[in-house]
Amino acid sequence: MKIVAAKKILKFNDRLAAENRAAFDAAGAFCVNVVGSPGSGKTTLLEALFAAGKGRLRPAVIEGDIAGAVDAQRMENIDVPVVQINTEGACHLDAAMVASAVGELDLGATGFLMIENVGNLVCTAGFDLGEHLRLIVLSTSEGDDKVVKYPAIFQGSHALVITKSDLCPYLNFDPQRLIDDFHRLVPQAPAFQVAALRGDGVQDLAEWLLEKQTGRQGAALPEKK
Amino acid sequence: MKIVAAKKILKFNDRLAAENRAAFDAAGAFCVNVVGSPGSGKTTLLEALFAAGKGRLRPAVIEGDIAGAVDAQRMENIDVPVVQINTEGACHLDAAMVASAVGELDLGATGFLMIENVGNLVCTAGFDLGEHLRLIVLSTSEGDDKVVKYPAIFQGSHALVITKSDLCPYLNFDPQRLIDDFHRLVPQAPAFQVAALRGDGVQDLAEWLLEKQTGRQGAALPEKK
Repeated sequence: MKIVAAKKILKFNDRLAAENRAAFDAAGAFCVNVVGSPGSGKTTLLEALFAAGKGRLRPAVIEGDIAGAVDAQRMENIDVPVVQINTEGACHLDAAMVASAVGELDLGATGFLMIENVGNLVCTAGFDLGEHLRLIVLSTSEGDDKVVKYPAIFQGSHALVITKSDLCPYLNFDPQRLIDDFHRLVPQAPAFQVAALRGDGVQDLAEWLLEKQTGRQGAALPEKK
Repeated sequence: MKIVAAKKILKFNDRLAAENRAAFDAAGAFCVNVVGSPGSGKTTLLEALFAAGKGRLRPAVIEGDIAGAVDAQRMENIDVPVVQINTEGACHLDAAMVASAVGELDLGATGFLMIENVGNLVCTAGFDLGEHLRLIVLSTSEGDDKVVKYPAIFQGSHALVITKSDLCPYLNFDPQRLIDDFHRLVPQAPAFQVAALRGDGVQDLAEWLLEKQTGRQGAALPEKK
């Protein structure tokens, strides 16, 4: 019997993630790993983003959930190709799950492959899925103290998206505190403030993603991180 | 070299949890494990609860966070005995962490030992800490679809507390949908709707907890679950 310890699993994951990234590059698909708490508004953000980038993003989505297909159904409703992964208890996606889901998509027809990770500010931090960049989504209603409490997930992200900014008048939430804490960890990363149901701020995020995609295609495939 | 697999770890955790529970019973402390997403309002709920049950609860708190002591500071500010556990990356508390934290508290002077778990709707579900009951906290801003997506954490809880009910007018949130989904999994468990910053609904929760505490002391220490 062989028993595989945690460190070895992570190493194996990193190898699969590199293979995923190579496959995305070969197909010209730009991959974004969207992480955040349950209910932070990841799916609603994707819906708004696809509306803002209509005709330019050519999106496909991998939905990660422990159970159910609520979010995948929402993607089908707006005619976005989608694969649902049910982790059946696992608290994050890993590169192997993504590899098997990608087989169900037409990568060559995909401009942006958006991976909506399981709602979790902790465990998703440790697993590279092969994405080109990671967005951390945090809603105003979660509070402005979250960078201090969950540093790892912010540390490894390339941009912060503060959702539900229209709720600010009803909350004790200081966006600047959150952004300052974030910039102490990741000084160059941009922070976007959006109200996805209204569409506020979403266009800026779409343009930034398109810019990053162009940069990736122009560059000679630089290594991530 | 010995390598311990996941199942064995859980079994060992259950044994420690039973020892914790026996120690709480011997000291007459009623232990509540409070779980929920980051930013669901667990700390604010505790603050409101202690105000509502002033003089009757004799609370002490164990705060579980990956890093920092933001929440423990808030407990000190209201003169509640508190121990901060920093999990340094781990996504949930386990019974061993709780056992070591309890050593820092005066259990004999404690009526209610409240454990605020790491913000996580997934990984906290699998670990019995030795509590007498578990409260699952979900804020209105997280959405009314969460029972379907994260069934395990709801399944093992003894009551649902819906926080931030004062935000309902600004959200697409149907509390009844959430409560119905919850009752399909745990038919007899009560659901409380609270706005902790205003105090709405908190007194009902405090009375229910006091009732449960009395029931536990009256009964001949029935086994949990």
